[in-house]
Amino acid sequence: MRIEEKDLFKSYFKNLTPRERALFEGGITLGALFHQFIGTPVSLKNREILERAIEESMKNQPCVQDISVKIVGDLKEEEYIPLDGSMLDVKLKTEVENTVAYLRLKYIEDLNYPLMYVEKIEER
Amino acid sequence: MRIEEKDLFKSYFKNLTPRERALFEGGITLGALFHQFIGTPVSLKNREILERAIEESMKNQPCVQDISVKIVGDLKEEEYIPLDGSMLDVKLKTEVENTVAYLRLKYIEDLNYPLMYVEKIEER
Amino acid sequence: MRIEEKDLFKSYFKNLTPRERALFEGGITLGALFHQFIGTPVSLKNREILERAIEESMKNQPCVQDISVKIVGDLKEEEYIPLDGSMLDVKLKTEVENTVAYLRLKYIEDLNYPLMYVEKIEER
Amino acid sequence: MRIEEKDLFKSYFKNLTPRERALFEGGITLGALFHQFIGTPVSLKNREILERAIEESMKNQPCVQDISVKIVGDLKEEEYIPLDGSMLDVKLKTEVENTVAYLRLKYIEDLNYPLMYVEKIEER
Repeated sequence: MRIEEKDLFKSYFKNLTPRERALFEGGITLGALFHQFIGTPVSLKNREILERAIEESMKNQPCVQDISVKIVGDLKEEEYIPLDGSMLDVKLKTEVENTVAYLRLKYIEDLNYPLMYVEKIEER
Repeated sequence: MRIEEKDLFKSYFKNLTPRERALFEGGITLGALFHQFIGTPVSLKNREILERAIEESMKNQPCVQDISVKIVGDLKEEEYIPLDGSMLDVKLKTEVENTVAYLRLKYIEDLNYPLMYVEKIEER
Repeated sequence: MRIEEKDLFKSYFKNLTPRERALFEGGITLGALFHQFIGTPVSLKNREILERAIEESMKNQPCVQDISVKIVGDLKEEEYIPLDGSMLDVKLKTEVENTVAYLRLKYIEDLNYPLMYVEKIEER
Repeated sequence: MRIEEKDLFKSYFKNLTPRERALFEGGITLGALFHQFIGTPVSLKNREILERAIEESMKNQPCVQDISVKIVGDLKEEEYIPLDGSMLDVKLKTEVENTVAYLRLKYIEDLNYPLMYVEKIEER
């Protein structure tokens, strides 16, 4: 991005504090990840490379500082299934200036729901 | 959802103010919308029903109070294209207690980028 | 499409019989449908419009003559879930010259698998 | 898959010749690939791992014998874009008994269209 573009980009976020932006961008990335990759065929053979590829694609998103993706659940030999929402365990860190937000996507069995939430926010 | 589930669900968001949660959930919904529907075949014939179906599916998401989706750009007679990021103009309202956030997904030509940002936040 | 484009387009399929092309295009449309829409938030409120929007978007695909989409399974009041592979029941008709192929996407419980297959092929 | 499942699975395809099935399954896989991965954030940093992950996920699909995915087009330093249909160059081999089908997904500039077609079919 050229400098003018960076300035223009920034100008759209003047109304948010670093903390608010970290949460907003974190939400975008979790929503993006879930709805981009749900349905992908996954088996014991491609689970690991899919985890890494999801991580690397999401590192492109604004303000993402780090991300870890685990595809959980029992996969049987010789079978594949479409990736579903109960199989994703994601830890995401977004960073804006001195604020770091730790976000999570995790299937909560008692809710029968793949929940996206915020584990903690640190001001350094 | 049963009451115990509602309480459990809420407990995950105790660390966010209503304003922060409105932004977080708004981010999730914009990221979800983009990555769910990009690629959908669209033509003059199905543009409108696709707009409505995107709106109605996203109204299911937590804290979404209202949403308007426009698929913009020139579609030619007898042609269809995969929906792409430059074609979405989305206005989203999320609401948490007394806070309403107005969010936008819009292609910004000077950035060559489908930008997700916050237009305003109101405390009522 | 202009005439030259139509001719160019056709030239890529000279090596297939109408029957083969009907099956090939039918396969494309079933694969497209599944992987485009799996993950979409669905509830009692938006089930019907989502069914119609999927149908209309897929009618854009080459050689699709008709399509019916049913989202099956129990949806509870006040809940939504991401559309998954066990919930789709799709009947698709593709047509190439005098050949009509009737294709199906349906969850087969004994296989625990959303199967795409060909019900029949008619030469008229 | 247990033997009874394999038999049940096969029984759905009794009405297709090996050649027809190779084309049908090839179509499914091309449609699936396109609509699953379009929209994924891609940059110089994650292009290669995304190519490999797409290949490995699609190798799970029935009858896929081999696949090569190239993400083409100019990506600029420090920028990422959503993967779009003009950026995919895919070579897919499906195999059913003695038949091998060579399929292609490639953006055809004169059509302004990401075309899925069959390059050749070999009976061995």
